[in-house]
Amino acid sequence: MVVIAADRLERLCLAAFKAAGCPTSEAELASKFLVLANLRGHDSHGVQRVPAYIQSIKSGTIKPGAQISIVKESPSTALVDGNWGLGQATAKRCMELAIEKASKHGVGIVSVFNCNHIGRLADYAEMAIKKDMLGFLTVNVGLSGPGRPISDRGTVAPYGGGKGVLGTNPLCYGIPAGREQPIIFDMATSIWPIGKVQVARARGTRVPDGVMLDGSGKPTNNAADFFGTPRGALLPFGGMVAYKGYGLALVVDILSGALSGFGTGLRAHTNGTFMMALNISYFQPIEEFKAEVDRLIKDCKGIPIYEGFVGIHGEKEVLVPGDPERMLEEKYRKEGVYVDEPTWDQLISTAKSFGIDPDKV
Amino acid sequence: MVVIAADRLERLCLAAFKAAGCPTSEAELASKFLVLANLRGHDSHGVQRVPAYIQSIKSGTIKPGAQISIVKESPSTALVDGNWGLGQATAKRCMELAIEKASKHGVGIVSVFNCNHIGRLADYAEMAIKKDMLGFLTVNVGLSGPGRPISDRGTVAPYGGGKGVLGTNPLCYGIPAGREQPIIFDMATSIWPIGKVQVARARGTRVPDGVMLDGSGKPTNNAADFFGTPRGALLPFGGMVAYKGYGLALVVDILSGALSGFGTGLRAHTNGTFMMALNISYFQPIEEFKAEVDRLIKDCKGIPIYEGFVGIHGEKEVLVPGDPERMLEEKYRKEGVYVDEPTWDQLISTAKSFGIDPDKV
Repeated sequence: MVVIAADRLERLCLAAFKAAGCPTSEAELASKFLVLANLRGHDSHGVQRVPAYIQSIKSGTIKPGAQISIVKESPSTALVDGNWGLGQATAKRCMELAIEKASKHGVGIVSVFNCNHIGRLADYAEMAIKKDMLGFLTVNVGLSGPGRPISDRGTVAPYGGGKGVLGTNPLCYGIPAGREQPIIFDMATSIWPIGKVQVARARGTRVPDGVMLDGSGKPTNNAADFFGTPRGALLPFGGMVAYKGYGLALVVDILSGALSGFGTGLRAHTNGTFMMALNISYFQPIEEFKAEVDRLIKDCKGIPIYEGFVGIHGEKEVLVPGDPERMLEEKYRKEGVYVDEPTWDQLISTAKSFGIDPDKV
Repeated sequence: MVVIAADRLERLCLAAFKAAGCPTSEAELASKFLVLANLRGHDSHGVQRVPAYIQSIKSGTIKPGAQISIVKESPSTALVDGNWGLGQATAKRCMELAIEKASKHGVGIVSVFNCNHIGRLADYAEMAIKKDMLGFLTVNVGLSGPGRPISDRGTVAPYGGGKGVLGTNPLCYGIPAGREQPIIFDMATSIWPIGKVQVARARGTRVPDGVMLDGSGKPTNNAADFFGTPRGALLPFGGMVAYKGYGLALVVDILSGALSGFGTGLRAHTNGTFMMALNISYFQPIEEFKAEVDRLIKDCKGIPIYEGFVGIHGEKEVLVPGDPERMLEEKYRKEGVYVDEPTWDQLISTAKSFGIDPDKV
């Protein structure tokens, strides 16, 4: 691990994106959101993506500076062509559109196609929170795409199915609170993210039962099986009731990929996106709503943990969604961001390939 | 078990609701939806509810014939006072309102308070499907209510928490398909419904690990502990990632109980309700959308199951949400509905208390 100050990491990404041809505002946005993902403990959506993004810019899959086009619109809805711009720029502009609609009409729903990887959904849900609105997003995540054939398997198996058909298909809710911190709930509908399988493979640790199938459709505890030929599959989340995670994955696929026309299942592209901003003041006075959310958070945090509980983040207390990320961000802002060496090496060589001196950013 | 023809069961319920003072249309609606729950395998939301509904009518908690009042409205949104009408009548009227708004403006969102138990959410999502729309509903489920103090514990524990704070807080999506059957996905955010705990207690079977806590906050395998004093708690669904089920339960609580002002967490009443109808044609031509949903369903159903898989419904194939209910309905329409004896006895005595001869309905 290499420990890098967050602002230095951001400057390094910024320089690379600008050198690759991104307008400054886009380079700043992508750098900010990618480093924020590391700060909040979601390294899979962090700076490790920079080389791939830059490769996509070079190959023409990401078109820096591309503007969105509104294809179909009503006061509360819009269908948007992302025109293959940088995903973060597309998503930010579309969430602004949803928020504008919700400001004037109570709710704004925006469905997006021709959209690259947009990063963590939480970043856009937070835009709604800042306007005292409730934000909801889904993306489907596919292996098909421009210049690639329809994939014969996806990443996540349907409940009971022996191979992957679906993506990790995350959903995210952002909910403003009053004195408490907002609820920011961003989850994949698969039991594990792919990043966790990569870590298990690198460390050679045993994958628990109920997480993975190998390429022939058999349950396996070996992370390497996921990356075999044919590719293995993750299971939907839910454990003994994994049909619930599967159902959510289907819903996310349809909201993201069928409503946008971008494709679902084996035909899913990078990120078909569904966004909603809901104007709380159309229902309740915002201060009353926030006070109720505060009470609910206190209801949950006010109770003792059960005997022997240790949470997935190592916590020994009841948290609400968004807390683990806030705790990590506080720590990493002070200590610096922990970047694994292969990622750091790739970042450095990407920067150098543009003639950037990594020690001088 | 007693086996009763569905239409006879419906006539018996109808006669009882009419005798209790429900207008015919409401008595028909409640009877239809309660029997439909049995037909589709969700006995907890079936005719076993009839005696309690009638008790609530007698005590004034359910007010037959009460009409909804729209408190606040915009073209795409409404806040509705259910005025404590029969829950099914309130919810049907509110879903009609959401659909009307979506017909004219692309989306309709309705938030409802002063609302009794509305039954299975799937029934209202199907109303949207029939209009070629996507339906989404949530309700929170609380133990507080008119004439009852704020409860000191709920049914479902937060992730890691030693006592219940939340309800079983279900959510439901209904999505129209083309040649395939629609996706109807109605799930509780708890790992088990209370009905399943009741069955385990009655049969004395061991509850698996990861399902329940006793009243002192310790994990337990004894169903009776759930009904002890103090009351035990169910865990949120998700198994090793139960923080995901917990996050969804919080979101459902807020959408249902904070947006409506009806209360969340320990302050939650019967059913605060959130409903959305989304007009697909504002985004895609409906036939193209349906064709894509069909392709996704075929993607999932077209793959073999993994070695050793037997689904929670006993199935040995990949299904989509809505399939298990359709399979049961087909069977029970032919064979009759299986009603457990205590429920049947209560139904009979309820009918007789109104002078209804159960053999002549």
